[in-house]
Amino acid sequence: MYKFETKNKKPLYVQLYEQIKEDIINNYQLEEKLPSIRKVMTTYNISKNTVEAAYSQLVIEGYIESFPKKGYLVISNEFQNFKTKDLDTKPYKEEEIRYDFFPAKLHKDTFPLKLWKRIYSKALDETIELGMYSDKQGEYSLRVELAKYLNHSRAVNCSAEQIIMTNGFADSLSILAMLFNNKIKNFSIEKPGYHVARKVFLNHNYNIDDIPINKEGIDIEKLQNGFSSLLYVTPSHQYPTGVTMPIANRMKLLTWAENTNSYIIEDDYDTELSYFNKPIPSLQGLDLKERVIYFGTFSKALSPALRVGYLVLPKQLIEKYKQEFIYHACRVCLITQKTLELFMKEGFWEKHLRRVRTINKKKHNLMKNQLEEKLGSTIKIEAQGGGLAILINPKVELNWQKLEKLAQKEKIKLHYTKERTNNNWQALMMGFGSFKEEEIEKAVSAFSKIWFESIN
Amino acid sequence: MYKFETKNKKPLYVQLYEQIKEDIINNYQLEEKLPSIRKVMTTYNISKNTVEAAYSQLVIEGYIESFPKKGYLVISNEFQNFKTKDLDTKPYKEEEIRYDFFPAKLHKDTFPLKLWKRIYSKALDETIELGMYSDKQGEYSLRVELAKYLNHSRAVNCSAEQIIMTNGFADSLSILAMLFNNKIKNFSIEKPGYHVARKVFLNHNYNIDDIPINKEGIDIEKLQNGFSSLLYVTPSHQYPTGVTMPIANRMKLLTWAENTNSYIIEDDYDTELSYFNKPIPSLQGLDLKERVIYFGTFSKALSPALRVGYLVLPKQLIEKYKQEFIYHACRVCLITQKTLELFMKEGFWEKHLRRVRTINKKKHNLMKNQLEEKLGSTIKIEAQGGGLAILINPKVELNWQKLEKLAQKEKIKLHYTKERTNNNWQALMMGFGSFKEEEIEKAVSAFSKIWFESIN
Repeated sequence: MYKFETKNKKPLYVQLYEQIKEDIINNYQLEEKLPSIRKVMTTYNISKNTVEAAYSQLVIEGYIESFPKKGYLVISNEFQNFKTKDLDTKPYKEEEIRYDFFPAKLHKDTFPLKLWKRIYSKALDETIELGMYSDKQGEYSLRVELAKYLNHSRAVNCSAEQIIMTNGFADSLSILAMLFNNKIKNFSIEKPGYHVARKVFLNHNYNIDDIPINKEGIDIEKLQNGFSSLLYVTPSHQYPTGVTMPIANRMKLLTWAENTNSYIIEDDYDTELSYFNKPIPSLQGLDLKERVIYFGTFSKALSPALRVGYLVLPKQLIEKYKQEFIYHACRVCLITQKTLELFMKEGFWEKHLRRVRTINKKKHNLMKNQLEEKLGSTIKIEAQGGGLAILINPKVELNWQKLEKLAQKEKIKLHYTKERTNNNWQALMMGFGSFKEEEIEKAVSAFSKIWFESIN
Repeated sequence: MYKFETKNKKPLYVQLYEQIKEDIINNYQLEEKLPSIRKVMTTYNISKNTVEAAYSQLVIEGYIESFPKKGYLVISNEFQNFKTKDLDTKPYKEEEIRYDFFPAKLHKDTFPLKLWKRIYSKALDETIELGMYSDKQGEYSLRVELAKYLNHSRAVNCSAEQIIMTNGFADSLSILAMLFNNKIKNFSIEKPGYHVARKVFLNHNYNIDDIPINKEGIDIEKLQNGFSSLLYVTPSHQYPTGVTMPIANRMKLLTWAENTNSYIIEDDYDTELSYFNKPIPSLQGLDLKERVIYFGTFSKALSPALRVGYLVLPKQLIEKYKQEFIYHACRVCLITQKTLELFMKEGFWEKHLRRVRTINKKKHNLMKNQLEEKLGSTIKIEAQGGGLAILINPKVELNWQKLEKLAQKEKIKLHYTKERTNNNWQALMMGFGSFKEEEIEKAVSAFSKIWFESIN
């Protein structure tokens, strides 16, 4: 006899299904007949729907089958063990760190939390269609705001139609890697250069051509002798060396692209965090032949956790994208897009940029002063003036391994360009963005202690 | 003489920079000397910082350079035209449609807007670190909630460590395509099957092996004779035919995977929208040999616009992922993740599922009744009972082209499985999710008119 609990949260048919299943496994032979639906209804005083639902589930799971004139016969009585394992719900053991010099982190106070919450709420109040897939390039009205911004602040020459909103750098790059999949086999990158760009194109089976950089950015002569027709560069603030490519070289680069029918990916990742000069206008804006693909992001100046970046394609490529990426879904949360749109439209983005620049310029200067004061003549500053880190190298003989060992002991987290450049260049990245102003002095003090201990 | 406007919003140094630049282009010869910084300071009574900033910008842009003992000389006087184009800000012309039978859309009222807003706000109030990149697998605490849910509702056997939060189906697939990149060259898929899965693996240069399906899902014999070691299946609700794979075949499939060292991707995309049976437990839960990769999504039952999906990897693959995807950033907005975590933790997800099922079951039944009433014996129902569409085919001779032409004329948007299955199977997808209940009768009426006109 089956028993049913009315207080049980489980629907009646599930209770019935579970008990019959157990019954089949323990007591039934193959091809043995189950009681008819009517019989079960009357025996337990339950509805036809309930019994049918339970039987139907047993049919789907392959225990029973309905045969004409015979009724329901058992076709499998083997127990299917859905073992439920003890879930491991212990939280991560967080590594305890006193000072983390992470080179691409904003202090959490930098995010305009209250404002964002208010605008998010407003965005949700306006009619957002959350029931369906949104525009694969991202919301048109957000792209209009972005095009305006890029035009006046970065001299990027584009309309909303040319923009694709992405989840950030790797997403933007993957789209390109797939777009050029059958046409281009070789991918050129600055050496030293950003390892993620390299990695994504390697993952897509491209051959990689490392082009060395010099004091004016990528070595254009070497490029001209190379074999690639797709080049990744960071002309405004070379990653990681910080070099800015002069305008003469920009023109040469564009001529190279035009003559060789090549495309240039301009990654303008952190020009918004430029502390001493009006940022140099984009390479894309100089391009009259539609050879430059422009990459930007909201990760550096707003938040990397929102996952919003974008790319601007030349017109012929956006057509290709539209034809080939039919299935593509925009990967940015729609509400985030709408919030960002309002944020830009109401002028908060430009205000935010000014605020972030002011805050981080102060931190930059503090870090620089502290490094010069505490480490003095033992260091050479390799890159400064922008972004969220100052890059240094020893001018003395330093035991790098000892430094890292001491850092771990002292719970100081250090970051090296080697890890981010495919081992092609070494410098220490002294990130300042994640610290509060008043923490910087202490952080550098702690660092200088292990630094001097590591000098041979 | 340069002029400065104090009411001008532009900083003084930018005004100076712009005027000197114009001056250089119009009046200077190459190697001509600029006035010294001190001279400019005294002439215009402006600070040293201002002049230095303007000159430094001109240096960066490659117009001038500082030479020892000579001062600043012009090294380029060519005008760099940053033309700003008229931005195209006209909104999209929306295609005017009376009835859209889109097969994967929820009505916008289905989204729990007020609740989401409240929880989002709560999530933001708790300490969220928006200044940095978040966990590349997604937030641990969200994955704990998800593991619990998958365990008890889908009998998925996993812990939080095995889950990767993604932006949805294509993102999940791309991760796998890259993970298997050098080990596996062939990818098997159901025929007919979901075209996006095919497309993503094609984009990653895999060979595709189409395995026909029969009444019990994928043809296991054909699979055993194939050459692939990576298989994509939709065992609980085959896309697009709706077939459920019986348990006996599931066991055979697992045996095949075990014997051939293959992996099975189980895409459990819409089992949550199952209207008449308790959904059959996942294939993953039957797998004792770690051969099944489980795919799920929040797109079908919550919102495709939030962009949240996930995959569950067997332990040996999650280790491989951790080693190889060092640079990978989680592509889901952190606030969305935190909101979803609270949404699940506080029990709203299960409540929401019950509500969505109830609403859409009603719409499903209305659509089915209307189709039977209005189209009667002229149609065969190919698939029903789950998801957001009923699939039909004509039992009479139908002029498909005429139907499509009439549909366009009447502003009815029809959707065909051919478009979504690489042309491998034809049926009409009568989506009901996007309609309000009271619209369904009118929509089917309008449709039946053009249907009968298209019968030969």
